[in-house]
Amino acid sequence: MTKLLVFQSDFGLVDGAVAAMYGVALGVDTDIKVYDLTHNIPPFNIWEASYRLIQTVPYWPEGSVFVSVVDPGVGSSRKSVVAKTKQGQYIVSPDNGTLTHIKRLIGIEEVREIDEAKCRRENSENSYTFHGRDVYAYTGAQLASGKLSFEDVGNLLSVERIVEFDDIPATLEDGVIKGSIDILDVRFGSLWTNISRTMFEELHIQPRDLVELSIYNGSIRIYQNRVTYGNTFADVNVGEIICYVNSMDHMAIAINQGNFAKAYNVGTQQPWRIEFRKVQ
Amino acid sequence: MTKLLVFQSDFGLVDGAVAAMYGVALGVDTDIKVYDLTHNIPPFNIWEASYRLIQTVPYWPEGSVFVSVVDPGVGSSRKSVVAKTKQGQYIVSPDNGTLTHIKRLIGIEEVREIDEAKCRRENSENSYTFHGRDVYAYTGAQLASGKLSFEDVGNLLSVERIVEFDDIPATLEDGVIKGSIDILDVRFGSLWTNISRTMFEELHIQPRDLVELSIYNGSIRIYQNRVTYGNTFADVNVGEIICYVNSMDHMAIAINQGNFAKAYNVGTQQPWRIEFRKVQ
Amino acid sequence: MTKLLVFQSDFGLVDGAVAAMYGVALGVDTDIKVYDLTHNIPPFNIWEASYRLIQTVPYWPEGSVFVSVVDPGVGSSRKSVVAKTKQGQYIVSPDNGTLTHIKRLIGIEEVREIDEAKCRRENSENSYTFHGRDVYAYTGAQLASGKLSFEDVGNLLSVERIVEFDDIPATLEDGVIKGSIDILDVRFGSLWTNISRTMFEELHIQPRDLVELSIYNGSIRIYQNRVTYGNTFADVNVGEIICYVNSMDHMAIAINQGNFAKAYNVGTQQPWRIEFRKVQ
Repeated sequence: MTKLLVFQSDFGLVDGAVAAMYGVALGVDTDIKVYDLTHNIPPFNIWEASYRLIQTVPYWPEGSVFVSVVDPGVGSSRKSVVAKTKQGQYIVSPDNGTLTHIKRLIGIEEVREIDEAKCRRENSENSYTFHGRDVYAYTGAQLASGKLSFEDVGNLLSVERIVEFDDIPATLEDGVIKGSIDILDVRFGSLWTNISRTMFEELHIQPRDLVELSIYNGSIRIYQNRVTYGNTFADVNVGEIICYVNSMDHMAIAINQGNFAKAYNVGTQQPWRIEFRKVQ
Repeated sequence: MTKLLVFQSDFGLVDGAVAAMYGVALGVDTDIKVYDLTHNIPPFNIWEASYRLIQTVPYWPEGSVFVSVVDPGVGSSRKSVVAKTKQGQYIVSPDNGTLTHIKRLIGIEEVREIDEAKCRRENSENSYTFHGRDVYAYTGAQLASGKLSFEDVGNLLSVERIVEFDDIPATLEDGVIKGSIDILDVRFGSLWTNISRTMFEELHIQPRDLVELSIYNGSIRIYQNRVTYGNTFADVNVGEIICYVNSMDHMAIAINQGNFAKAYNVGTQQPWRIEFRKVQ
Repeated sequence: MTKLLVFQSDFGLVDGAVAAMYGVALGVDTDIKVYDLTHNIPPFNIWEASYRLIQTVPYWPEGSVFVSVVDPGVGSSRKSVVAKTKQGQYIVSPDNGTLTHIKRLIGIEEVREIDEAKCRRENSENSYTFHGRDVYAYTGAQLASGKLSFEDVGNLLSVERIVEFDDIPATLEDGVIKGSIDILDVRFGSLWTNISRTMFEELHIQPRDLVELSIYNGSIRIYQNRVTYGNTFADVNVGEIICYVNSMDHMAIAINQGNFAKAYNVGTQQPWRIEFRKVQ
């Protein structure tokens, strides 16, 4: 094993919850190297937890173990699982939709239900509200340390039956691409869409050419203009709007050194929609 | 030694103060593994520094070294100390109340005053305002690396005379438990009280039964209602109030997937009080 | 090599960008120890990126590798470089002013332009917008792991021609020191000036004596008063203003346990100026 353990949660970093999970993990094996994905997932936002995994997991070495704890259903009948991705990383998580993007975009090889009878910190049987610390961090550390094999986590589940968000794919019809805004590049206010570079390229728009962009909130059009499709931010002026391929190989919209989401009060997911068409 | 070094401060993570401490520590020994508790303790809030230690220290392996720098009295006559807990972790801190909860809840075996003549970064004698970097991080790293033994930190002090906050324990009388709100689970707005599970159990309330809850700001009652005592959040509906045992084995109040503190503008410590009684 | 790798950026910690860089780095060598300087540099604020490096780099061991990604010109003709400081640390950064303070205050021995033909993550040739992950994190990790020598990064550039901010030094004339406010100690609202302790000492003011302080926003005087020059915060009362030597060995202004910048709405850099003179 690489002994790499990576935590994600919606706990924030203002109290001791994350550090308690670190302590439990290092108590399993002080040689584990613990890192963070982020702990600033908006509270209970499973969609965003799923997205941040696909944004990062593929860049980590085979054998890395991720622990994601965004768990509005803690204590309910939702299952606790470990997924093994087709690239060989492991993800410890509640089975509540968190694995959606990973399953669709890189694939899950196998998924196992955590047997809480053995995958649980000693003497924590009476603790019901902090599975992140008592079950997930502990199990992730056991895996990362090599003390627990994936096979011994628990029984195999059907990958097909993992809990997933509905898939509303982008479409291209009559020269119009319609898609959704998956998420923000929060710090810079850029819109990250579900429209792939490949689909966009079917419009045959060249870098530095204009593309017609419309953004809707339900039936109301919030933005419409011709914007530059650029390879890099340097293809437009400071303060100018750019349509570009983001680090996920999907189309994105930004204001160069500005904040598009704040400028036009744009949000993500339902009911927001985005359209591209070739300038006539 | 485990070579585990854990920092806590009120410095925030927006500038270079924490990274300067990291650099000093790794300059002592590049093999130390440095982790964070939190650096978002509200400025000068010693009470919260003390609470975050008890929330995390017990989960870390024997030999882990914590450095806590919340130090409104830097440069004053307040002592700099290293405490050894009864579980074998070390805490480097100003003696200003930061050790209160650790002393009461897991116990301190010995405490020594840091001899700043030897426990100080080289060539830092003219620096008076950043003891966190020049004395505490340096001493913590010396300890974590094994280059300095606890015995060589400096003279023994009396554990009894460590600076502490007043203890205002929860009480149970005539079927009414009165306690205080120690702290918030900040991100989720839950109230964490000083009422232990053991005391609460003396009311003989079963999981999923109702308990009468009152919250006061001084003499003014801010909240009164019957709320469900649940084992887990899944015992109540989304948006419903739950009284539960938190990860510190104390009673807590939350709105399932909501924010109780924001909903009712509830704060912590003086003058806030909380009461439980059995439903008649 | 020490295998120490330290990241700084303006990406924030709310999404997966930083964790993707970590993954790339640990994919180069899982034994690298990755730490953060800060990821909360205000977006595109190169000045602050430069300042946070000088605040921290000197405290890290020889051989430590810093990667700083504050890069408004990503994709433009700005060069990507690695600088070796006179103390033996390495800094991977765009050549956009980020190296200003390091060059002036500790010195740069050599600087090399990154040859992106070889210093680039495999299969990332079509990614134009995330050099932080694909070029900088990767190159930093190659250096930190010892797989790439500094000499093999690329061609030597002239240290003299590194992009720098204008230098507006503090002056002392007729017993009046005039300087600027470089930056805030953000969390505590203290003003950090560009006036060195050495220059201040030429006023021959003793600790605990008063000094006349004026602060201007352009031509408008925002603050004028006599304040105490103290060795430590303990030299003044809680809530009192203190002029002191900060951890950079420069003069700073604070309210003991308060927030000077918020109290008087003071900002940094142009058009803010600060003056000290001996009390008559």
